[in-house]
Amino acid sequence: MAKTSRICHLLLRFLAFSATLSAVIVMVSSHERATFFNVSFEAKYTTSPALKYFVIANSVVTVYGFLVLFLPAESLLWRLVVAMDMVLTMLLISSLSAALAIAQVAKQGNNSAAWLPICGSVPKFCNHITGALIASFIGVIIYMILLLHSIHSVLDPLLLKKT
Amino acid sequence: MAKTSRICHLLLRFLAFSATLSAVIVMVSSHERATFFNVSFEAKYTTSPALKYFVIANSVVTVYGFLVLFLPAESLLWRLVVAMDMVLTMLLISSLSAALAIAQVAKQGNNSAAWLPICGSVPKFCNHITGALIASFIGVIIYMILLLHSIHSVLDPLLLKKT
Repeated sequence: MAKTSRICHLLLRFLAFSATLSAVIVMVSSHERATFFNVSFEAKYTTSPALKYFVIANSVVTVYGFLVLFLPAESLLWRLVVAMDMVLTMLLISSLSAALAIAQVAKQGNNSAAWLPICGSVPKFCNHITGALIASFIGVIIYMILLLHSIHSVLDPLLLKKT
Repeated sequence: MAKTSRICHLLLRFLAFSATLSAVIVMVSSHERATFFNVSFEAKYTTSPALKYFVIANSVVTVYGFLVLFLPAESLLWRLVVAMDMVLTMLLISSLSAALAIAQVAKQGNNSAAWLPICGSVPKFCNHITGALIASFIGVIIYMILLLHSIHSVLDPLLLKKT
């Protein structure tokens, strides 16, 4: 039982690691050159601070996720992992939200601020961003499951067991 | 000792409640009419989905923060509060990041997407947004302290006590 649960746990962590790694790769590989009112410009993640933050945050979480995969089962560091999980999940959520806010403006624009949507001119770039956001979202969901499971097993918040 | 710690805890929760409440009030009260290239427009938080999300998330956390203030000390619900704290802190961080990403574009624009900064035309609106973001940030910091303290007291991740 404990072994199955541990395999399940490691599998989830491996999926989260793959998800954040994919998010980084897809985002970094997104660039497209387009002309807009006779001005040529290159759409790249480095042109927006929010997308740069997204890449940095996802890279940090990817490295962390990789290292945790090799932590021995009996290590006392697992207690620290719960706190680290929480902080890094928050970092991931924060970067995802910031990138999502920018992607929403890129897709739909903002009438009152006169920001025009750019996805019509750089569809490939927008598709890459969408893909990276979905991958990162999957990572967030898995880390949330891991975190809520940790809290549940330590605190039993729904009082399922007799106290 | 336990009483002092409880008073400290409630004080922190009250501060977090005040911070998120201020964020909602400051953000909702932000609107300014301006003319931009002969077009009159009203800058308001409802014109951006990210800012609307910010108001909704901060309102939810404010209501939750208010209710928790009246939870009796001996209630078993405190175990659920740790999990709820975590989920709502993530909601708060997510809304703060999204609003911050939009505020950054409003302040500095984005050259490659040809999004012009609007803070020059609507300075009062931008000041309100900055104030709301700072208030919400204070709320996030306090909830993070509460959360890390809960995790610390339950798990002792740094192994300060003898096991």
